[in-house]
Amino acid sequence: MAEEAAPIRFGILGCAEIARKVSRAITLSPNATLYAVGSRSLDKATKFAASNGFPPHAKVYGSYEGVIEDPEVDAVYVPLPTSLHVQWAVLAAQKKKHLLLEKPVALNVHDLHKILEACESNGLQYMDATMWMHHPRTTQMFHFLSDPQQFGRLQSVHATFSYGVSPYFLENDIRVKPELDALGALGDTGWYCVRAILWASNYELPKSATALHKPTYNDAGVILACAASLSWEDDKVATFYCSFLTDMSMDIIVMGTKGSLRVHDYVIPNQEKEAKFSTSSNSNWVELSLGWAPNPSEHVVYNDLPQEAHMVKEFARLVGAIKYNNSKPEDTWPIISRKTQLVIDAVKTSIDNGLEPVEIKG
Amino acid sequence: MAEEAAPIRFGILGCAEIARKVSRAITLSPNATLYAVGSRSLDKATKFAASNGFPPHAKVYGSYEGVIEDPEVDAVYVPLPTSLHVQWAVLAAQKKKHLLLEKPVALNVHDLHKILEACESNGLQYMDATMWMHHPRTTQMFHFLSDPQQFGRLQSVHATFSYGVSPYFLENDIRVKPELDALGALGDTGWYCVRAILWASNYELPKSATALHKPTYNDAGVILACAASLSWEDDKVATFYCSFLTDMSMDIIVMGTKGSLRVHDYVIPNQEKEAKFSTSSNSNWVELSLGWAPNPSEHVVYNDLPQEAHMVKEFARLVGAIKYNNSKPEDTWPIISRKTQLVIDAVKTSIDNGLEPVEIKG
Repeated sequence: MAEEAAPIRFGILGCAEIARKVSRAITLSPNATLYAVGSRSLDKATKFAASNGFPPHAKVYGSYEGVIEDPEVDAVYVPLPTSLHVQWAVLAAQKKKHLLLEKPVALNVHDLHKILEACESNGLQYMDATMWMHHPRTTQMFHFLSDPQQFGRLQSVHATFSYGVSPYFLENDIRVKPELDALGALGDTGWYCVRAILWASNYELPKSATALHKPTYNDAGVILACAASLSWEDDKVATFYCSFLTDMSMDIIVMGTKGSLRVHDYVIPNQEKEAKFSTSSNSNWVELSLGWAPNPSEHVVYNDLPQEAHMVKEFARLVGAIKYNNSKPEDTWPIISRKTQLVIDAVKTSIDNGLEPVEIKG
Repeated sequence: MAEEAAPIRFGILGCAEIARKVSRAITLSPNATLYAVGSRSLDKATKFAASNGFPPHAKVYGSYEGVIEDPEVDAVYVPLPTSLHVQWAVLAAQKKKHLLLEKPVALNVHDLHKILEACESNGLQYMDATMWMHHPRTTQMFHFLSDPQQFGRLQSVHATFSYGVSPYFLENDIRVKPELDALGALGDTGWYCVRAILWASNYELPKSATALHKPTYNDAGVILACAASLSWEDDKVATFYCSFLTDMSMDIIVMGTKGSLRVHDYVIPNQEKEAKFSTSSNSNWVELSLGWAPNPSEHVVYNDLPQEAHMVKEFARLVGAIKYNNSKPEDTWPIISRKTQLVIDAVKTSIDNGLEPVEIKG
């Protein structure tokens, strides 16, 4: 994007809690601006705009259509319940809006294909709103995992994401409603685990997924906690645990032939301004196996912008390149989003089929 | 053991590398003394005694029989290859020697039963040499896991133990020889993972074990790396990864309804004098999910005696109580050793049966 180019104008569909965080991120991102918000309730949209840093000239609509039909909107951020994603993402794409889509992106890969096809055929940038991917720490960690001397070849990954939800959440949140977010904890927290595993394997799609135990369901049949393993043709293996019923955990342990990496707050860092991870490389026993040499190393990454602002900035950069420089959309994001969904679908099928291994076909 | 009671006299069968570490531990333990060592080579035994702190009056034998027939020996430490455990452990028990047995304790639970039966019928203390169980850190961590307010109910455990072995090890070590240690990495490193999982679940035996991918084998068919999951009747689930082909890793992540615990050097602490772990309890998001509150806590446990000396001290205390105070053997150790072996056997069966789930019967 040229220096003088105007910031990318965002419209937001709905007033979800997470949209407050992304509104702040748009405000913090130098190449993006809050331009419009739409809700089925004009009053709600007005209050949302007023309390989330929208500029005075921002548009407020009493419908989602208002946003996607506004010709000044460059891109939409869609934090609607998953069951509404296909409808609104496809409509937005038809109106030439670039798409930043909250996860889980779809109820299944069939739905996701409709969304991706709509974006692709309209020349639009697609990105899922997986914020941690954009943290500078993630780049540093990926650099370590790519180092043949320090890390070697991937052998095993374990990922977790859990948080203990309130009784109110268990009764009312969209993430426990079969008609809204039917994938439950697998779609919400499992999405991050699967993405973490794909990330650690440099996005090599596993060949199969196996759920590891009968998940915990709510009365409506929505998954509240589950675990699965993924395996590849070679000797790599991955496992994950995701839950709404477990205290906060966000771990990735990546083990390679020559080194390993650990991070314990990958989804949302403990603190916004700095984030940690640890690595170990070419460790051996000291004499008589009384300790390690070398010991693992701690790393701290300082962060001027929060990770969600880095996400918005990168998305807006790609949109700007299309808008101002006739660039093509960056296809990395639809590709890894689709792989994530394929794995989620396979885990769901394994759960539904009594824990049978399910082949994953790219 | 009364203050004036003589230290427990240890005999060591064989001159394994690990026996050097345990010899040092016996020396460091105030209630134990190095008394005898036997090897098939008298020369080797003599050199071992001379270089591992045996007192001048210590007995040196050119056979294992010499040690177990020495009436002054109270207890034997047996670091022989696993395939020899039944023979020598049972013979030692018949000679009324208390038994500190290196892991893996047996090739299968059938063999282990012979050993335990020999110890029990002779009124002898049995303990497997799983050193980390005796670190004061382990006690502190167990205390946290037992706290219903800070940890809650167990939901998930993940454990790892791996180290990258040398080409020499891969050709020559007993742990890759089917006639010596047929369980390979599962018996050596997997033993610790399974014990860690049992420990975290307060030794509740899982109902089933499932291997997660085709293990890596050497040319002789010995396992060099594998992964498995364990599940219980309720919603608990555990996974582990163990390997000879992966850089050093020793993780336990224990996740509960109200808290979680992480340790990354549970088998052998990074340093001998202090050991760390971290816990998190009742964490929640800060406003807008920009961080955690409270953040996880780091704990440091200072250690005057190395964990293996704590192990020897506790074993010698139990032996002393039998010898001097007519106490009964402590049956916790045979019980958890047997549970560990039962799980190892089930994982091995699952591997052999093409990753089928295997029921674990107590």
